[in-house]
Amino acid sequence: MNIEMIRAAAGRLKGNAAVTPLLESPLLNEVAGRRLLVKAECLQKTGSFKFRGGWSAVSALAPEVRARGVLAYSSGNHAQGVALAARLHGVPAVIVMPSDAPASKIANTRAYGAEVVLYDRQKENREAIGAEIAERRGLTLIKPYDEPQVIAGQGTCGLEIARQAAEAEVMQADVMVCCGGGGLTSGIALALAAEAPGLRARPAEPEGFDDVGRSLAAGRIQRNAAGAQSICDAILTPQPGDLTFPILKAHCGPGLAASDEECLRAMALAWARLKIVVEPGGAAALACALFRGDQIEGDAVIATASGGNVDAPMFRMALERYAAD
Amino acid sequence: MNIEMIRAAAGRLKGNAAVTPLLESPLLNEVAGRRLLVKAECLQKTGSFKFRGGWSAVSALAPEVRARGVLAYSSGNHAQGVALAARLHGVPAVIVMPSDAPASKIANTRAYGAEVVLYDRQKENREAIGAEIAERRGLTLIKPYDEPQVIAGQGTCGLEIARQAAEAEVMQADVMVCCGGGGLTSGIALALAAEAPGLRARPAEPEGFDDVGRSLAAGRIQRNAAGAQSICDAILTPQPGDLTFPILKAHCGPGLAASDEECLRAMALAWARLKIVVEPGGAAALACALFRGDQIEGDAVIATASGGNVDAPMFRMALERYAAD
Repeated sequence: MNIEMIRAAAGRLKGNAAVTPLLESPLLNEVAGRRLLVKAECLQKTGSFKFRGGWSAVSALAPEVRARGVLAYSSGNHAQGVALAARLHGVPAVIVMPSDAPASKIANTRAYGAEVVLYDRQKENREAIGAEIAERRGLTLIKPYDEPQVIAGQGTCGLEIARQAAEAEVMQADVMVCCGGGGLTSGIALALAAEAPGLRARPAEPEGFDDVGRSLAAGRIQRNAAGAQSICDAILTPQPGDLTFPILKAHCGPGLAASDEECLRAMALAWARLKIVVEPGGAAALACALFRGDQIEGDAVIATASGGNVDAPMFRMALERYAAD
Repeated sequence: MNIEMIRAAAGRLKGNAAVTPLLESPLLNEVAGRRLLVKAECLQKTGSFKFRGGWSAVSALAPEVRARGVLAYSSGNHAQGVALAARLHGVPAVIVMPSDAPASKIANTRAYGAEVVLYDRQKENREAIGAEIAERRGLTLIKPYDEPQVIAGQGTCGLEIARQAAEAEVMQADVMVCCGGGGLTSGIALALAAEAPGLRARPAEPEGFDDVGRSLAAGRIQRNAAGAQSICDAILTPQPGDLTFPILKAHCGPGLAASDEECLRAMALAWARLKIVVEPGGAAALACALFRGDQIEGDAVIATASGGNVDAPMFRMALERYAAD
């Protein structure tokens, strides 16, 4: 993994992925206690940054390999990103998804033309199911984060943050990144290290799933304890990736963690102040920027709003609890 | 009014207003039955395009005039646009607002530092109240639409649409514009006529408040019948402006109208597919693009999502009625 792979991915994404805006609201700055710039990746195609990695990986395949089709396993955002990238390349996609994924994520993955295979998250192993189908049907597996071209694609978000922060005259800031397996965080960290040395990536995780933060503190990979629960479905991974962790260790600041309620509050504030729709897992970085400011230094902070694929009842609940009537 | 005033306004807005994205969703294209590009002005500062006109007008004043302060009357979006533009220029603002405006619009206008004067929309005349206060306190009135520098500011949105549509390879399309008094519509119409001759502005209004559409059809200014009701608070004006109507007549295609329920459905679809928050009046153009496609020709259509300042109960209602659970 290196910055040249990210720049090459940016070339392949140009004109195919959206350049998402870096948003700011004076009234949200007041809540954060400093300038807060929000990278609105919920406005990316398929509603999350995952389209970047999906497009990067599918477009990097040799044409004769790509033509046989691709396979991914995902709770929903990588699923949609790979599904649409495959459709736009005119190749088949099979997506292995947990049967308890948000209904809209399953429906959208099918709407983008993919074949969805559901599995039971408690009893079955998605890697084994995926490997068997890929082998049998000659499909190329596109892993959700521990895959160089996926990391390169997510890193293009970091190239945009570097340029857009400079345009906003923010040269020095922590960049909170919603973090599951670390694909987006490691990609952004690599891009910032190369292009914006005053900006530092920091993983933002749900409480109870702060494996990356604890791994960074310990200096080696730590797993999450079994049995924790969170509404942040998009970023619930057991441990950092083998490929992502060394990058995170080399380039990231300390991790932060947000509670489910803080994520819901951040969703309501993003709705009220930025006019964007953010899902719970996509709100973890914003929640840390807003409510964990004591762990952040400097006059400015940047947060990724990494996805917006949330079912209506969950979103209504965020507004009922935290949006002023 | 001419294109040079819009280009000059764009120069004054550069670095102060956001360049909002032109969004597209494959799944929304399926609903529209053609390519649909959405100009997300809800992501503009203060949550609506009105910041463009507010900044344009305040920045165009002579410094010694501006220093005495500005006054505006508005149901809420022009209020916030002028309030923030004044605050960023360091000058006072008084905003005359109807007491039944959405609570969040009144609260935000105050939060941007303006002095808010409430009046009773049924019994009092906002023009008279505004004129009296402006006279007494030496403030400059900034009208919501019938004011050249306001139209010039709104027209900068049209310059962006012209450029962004070309980048998306859409050279021929109708551009639906949410239309109250016609400030945004006339500004966009002027900009498109000069810079994108294949794009044609068309006013989108709420049913019962289709004065602009009927005026265009009749060739002279028509008023709305008294007593009509609509949830589209941002665009309920009695008749086209004296300044805006000749521009609309010269450059716009026929008007369209959307029902309140169609606006709520468009809000739910914008939430689900584009991940943006749109208010009822800001959804009229999108509703026409989605549900009145039989009145539109061509392979592509563009719609402005002109604002996102909506109270939580109204937004929750849109999701309850029209977002799949």
